[in-house]
Amino acid sequence: MLQILKHARLVSGQVCGPSIRCLAPAASPRVTAGMQASAAHYSTGSAESEHGTGPRRHVILLGTALGVGTVMALGLYQNLHVSQAKEKAALMPSSSDAEMPVKAIESVAVTELPIYTEAEVAKHRTPSDKIWVSYKGGVYDITAFVELHPGGDKILLAAGGALEPFWAMYAVHNNEHVLEILEEYRIGRLDQSSVTAASLDLSDPYSTDPARLPILRINSLKPFNAEPPSQLLADTYLTPNAIFFKRNHLPVPVIDPETYRLEVQGLGMKRPISLSLHDLKSKFKKHEVVATLQCAGNRRTEMNRVRQVKGLEWGIAAIGTARWGGVLLRDVLLYAGVKEDQLPQNGHVQFEGLDKDVTGSAYGASVPLHKALDRRADVLLAYEMNGEELPRDHGFPLRAIVPGIVGARNVKWLGRVLLSHDESLSHWQQNDYKGFSPSVDWDTVDYKTAPAIQELPVQSAITEPVDGTELTENADEVTVRGYAWSGGGRSVVRVDVSLDGGRTWQTAELLPPSNDSAPQDEGRAWAWKLWSLTAPIPNGQRSLEIVCKAVDSAYNVQPDSFAPIWNLRGVLATAWHRVNVKVPSDEKK
Amino acid sequence: MLQILKHARLVSGQVCGPSIRCLAPAASPRVTAGMQASAAHYSTGSAESEHGTGPRRHVILLGTALGVGTVMALGLYQNLHVSQAKEKAALMPSSSDAEMPVKAIESVAVTELPIYTEAEVAKHRTPSDKIWVSYKGGVYDITAFVELHPGGDKILLAAGGALEPFWAMYAVHNNEHVLEILEEYRIGRLDQSSVTAASLDLSDPYSTDPARLPILRINSLKPFNAEPPSQLLADTYLTPNAIFFKRNHLPVPVIDPETYRLEVQGLGMKRPISLSLHDLKSKFKKHEVVATLQCAGNRRTEMNRVRQVKGLEWGIAAIGTARWGGVLLRDVLLYAGVKEDQLPQNGHVQFEGLDKDVTGSAYGASVPLHKALDRRADVLLAYEMNGEELPRDHGFPLRAIVPGIVGARNVKWLGRVLLSHDESLSHWQQNDYKGFSPSVDWDTVDYKTAPAIQELPVQSAITEPVDGTELTENADEVTVRGYAWSGGGRSVVRVDVSLDGGRTWQTAELLPPSNDSAPQDEGRAWAWKLWSLTAPIPNGQRSLEIVCKAVDSAYNVQPDSFAPIWNLRGVLATAWHRVNVKVPSDEKK
Repeated sequence: MLQILKHARLVSGQVCGPSIRCLAPAASPRVTAGMQASAAHYSTGSAESEHGTGPRRHVILLGTALGVGTVMALGLYQNLHVSQAKEKAALMPSSSDAEMPVKAIESVAVTELPIYTEAEVAKHRTPSDKIWVSYKGGVYDITAFVELHPGGDKILLAAGGALEPFWAMYAVHNNEHVLEILEEYRIGRLDQSSVTAASLDLSDPYSTDPARLPILRINSLKPFNAEPPSQLLADTYLTPNAIFFKRNHLPVPVIDPETYRLEVQGLGMKRPISLSLHDLKSKFKKHEVVATLQCAGNRRTEMNRVRQVKGLEWGIAAIGTARWGGVLLRDVLLYAGVKEDQLPQNGHVQFEGLDKDVTGSAYGASVPLHKALDRRADVLLAYEMNGEELPRDHGFPLRAIVPGIVGARNVKWLGRVLLSHDESLSHWQQNDYKGFSPSVDWDTVDYKTAPAIQELPVQSAITEPVDGTELTENADEVTVRGYAWSGGGRSVVRVDVSLDGGRTWQTAELLPPSNDSAPQDEGRAWAWKLWSLTAPIPNGQRSLEIVCKAVDSAYNVQPDSFAPIWNLRGVLATAWHRVNVKVPSDEKK
Repeated sequence: MLQILKHARLVSGQVCGPSIRCLAPAASPRVTAGMQASAAHYSTGSAESEHGTGPRRHVILLGTALGVGTVMALGLYQNLHVSQAKEKAALMPSSSDAEMPVKAIESVAVTELPIYTEAEVAKHRTPSDKIWVSYKGGVYDITAFVELHPGGDKILLAAGGALEPFWAMYAVHNNEHVLEILEEYRIGRLDQSSVTAASLDLSDPYSTDPARLPILRINSLKPFNAEPPSQLLADTYLTPNAIFFKRNHLPVPVIDPETYRLEVQGLGMKRPISLSLHDLKSKFKKHEVVATLQCAGNRRTEMNRVRQVKGLEWGIAAIGTARWGGVLLRDVLLYAGVKEDQLPQNGHVQFEGLDKDVTGSAYGASVPLHKALDRRADVLLAYEMNGEELPRDHGFPLRAIVPGIVGARNVKWLGRVLLSHDESLSHWQQNDYKGFSPSVDWDTVDYKTAPAIQELPVQSAITEPVDGTELTENADEVTVRGYAWSGGGRSVVRVDVSLDGGRTWQTAELLPPSNDSAPQDEGRAWAWKLWSLTAPIPNGQRSLEIVCKAVDSAYNVQPDSFAPIWNLRGVLATAWHRVNVKVPSDEKK
């Protein structure tokens, strides 16, 4: 039984703190075999787990990087797309162009085309293997179209998978002409039954996890943890659900919305109440909030370069913004009979998920009670994400949304809300998601000495250009884009960008709010700001070290470097973001 | 008239931004003469003003540093006092010790002793001039006692002035035995009429300013801006009123508490209301808040070392903590008929002072309206400071206290409260107290592009040892002490201290709350935390570069260095605090 528990801890990717001795062998055959099989199925991403062995608790990687080579940045800027589209429209194949090889297929009835599974489509991700995509039941070989794509090589990000999430993000595709062009490349039909669960191996608790897009950069398969390619992140204000970072601690529970109940109980209530999904949608006013969620471990990879930390190797994209729809927790608590002035000033709202480990322990977390009661805090029980039913990976049918607070407290698959004098007793509240000094190591850490992370500090990162790339030839200037956000409802008031490693700074433009933007009431700036700076490339420079740093409405700033904020768990990685790019030589220019 | 206005701007120490062209001559004879005269009267402090001339707006110092040499740090640690006191008690002169020169005076009746003015006492601040102090109408020559003082050389901080504020801070003095010792050093009586106003020059708008202690480090005499010696700051949790930093923008107004009225008007009120001081004290429940106030320019001196900024040369002590007593602004607004849910989400509370420049313009500032209405925000109209009537320098008879917000919005001598859709239109809200990028200079600054500073970022500083001093001989360890605070009610959760310039870190002890401590409700941590670290001095080290940095409850951190947060006005100086000290050589050890 102890062995099973240890496996569960490993599988769920938890850190082994002093309170959990990790004595299991480094590589459990069952676990690694399962991971490799699943990784093969997904054809991309790196499978990784970690744990400590004995007092030193060295980090051991169980999986191997399986290659995300095709998900590469290409240094194309969104603001070039329109002009490129105009130029390339002339080159596009029309339906009367008899020379295109795909024409032969046109004469075949769609129903006679071969049927391919999702896995078969996923094998075609490079020009040599051909580039296949799927869309609404069709399978398409777009190898010949890649060069013609007005959006440039970004089309390769969809290679081997579905077009839908991209077209949802790039609304320009939603017209007849684009569909006509696509139809010319049809080669088959998608086996719809292959789209659902990853595998039907009933011994695997992750077998009922939902399907995900192959473009996600996978940091852990079981539990599923993945982020989108970072260069997509600042392309839309609202992050499409399909590529919104997924941070699961346990298998995704299978929940029947018809029988689902939310239990609400604790301080200030004479008796517990139980609400169905229908109750929530019918008894309370719908409330929408545009809010950014960020994982405590976002940008951990950079902190890891200073000194090894324990945690999933998140890049800069463990952050996203959505329009969340649901009911105010405040309204539900008042409905349950809670009187505001009879509750303790320092109480807590505990959230308990329906995702459980093999011992039956649920994921849980808590937030300060006063937030739940504050009209201005916009704390939601959400059943919608970007206008869609909450996706399974994001907590279907109901999750907590606590704007301005670290992702880990926005509990998914919410089963119970408990008002209490105490914080959640869960591992994740008590012995994880806390910050420590650089001097604290796994032999000295005492989790009781640090507060649970709630509001997050100010953060920003550069999404374009991508680190290590070469700028476009003949460019005299460079466009730098990215995101910036701060916790606690503090708005971002300025982003500084440097092209010389931090010696001199220019002020980026904060992009004007679109219809999708969050209202930025004072103290309620729950959503990020996207920003952009176009600046001349200094003469004769062969490379640029581009840096960004943000300032929030309390004039908090990001620290200069990672070493002084290094912490053993690799959370709160908010030092200046740096990317190095090459400038094409003069001859090439 | 224009010339008079310019003088007023100069006298009130304002920066000349683009909207105020400063064409007045660099040194107005009237102004400089007045400053020198007053400076001589105070016998200490540096008088300084500043302005720009023409487009380049070079900073010109009108005053000269007059020497604060005796106010020096001496590297003695508070925790040594008790043991030193025990040792030195044996050496103390007793009333039967006939060899002491002061004995001669004992036989003279007190009423026959000479009368000295405050100014005469102030001339005796060094051993060569003799060290005089005053206490409750007596004047004492304590030159011979300095070596015997259990509290060490800190007694020199009182040289030339009154003992009362020090004895209020160091309660150990409040006993018969100490009074007996003091009486042995009596040499005269204090001319009580000399204790009041600085001068009776009626042409000087500052002539009715209150008297201040000579130990204050004066950054500007007119208006009066001064801070205590920094090494006193962490000795008491509540900062004594007499040494609490004073940041005046204009002359201190003379207000008759009997005729004083507070006007309250604006959004949500059918008609303005007018309240007397008696109304405020009798109609509303008294509310007390322990809160730290910090000047936006605290630690400007350090930022100035990177590149010249404009502003008063504050050290690390433009910060202090007091127990403020008064009424909740919320209660007053509800009394005035305001309905919470009928006010705009993004409204403002404008505060207008009764301190005015020669044109009749009052000091003013505003804060977000939702703060004023939030029970948890503890926004006060305060008439008490540390249990005493609000001192004139701190806003008698009434001031705004907006906990967690920059000092400049805590308007003193409050005359009017106005609920509005708009921020205060005052110079200080619109064209001062804002943060900018290091790339913005006086030729390019546009004040509209930055938000008014409200909540302040996380801050900390080392109060002992003092920069440039030598550690005690024979010491194997060093004790580092200081303060840490963050704005917006965010508590300080950790202070890191480095003895090697920031390469390695140790976690300081956050001093346990005393009876004076503020309640630290979640999100309502309005007051600072004092901290301490005692650590071994690394073997063979001849010098230490001691650094501190704090972390707040949103895990915001201080930036590593000043250059990247440099701004033309020198505000928000929150980079790591560094002090360099010498370690006595082995021979001396």
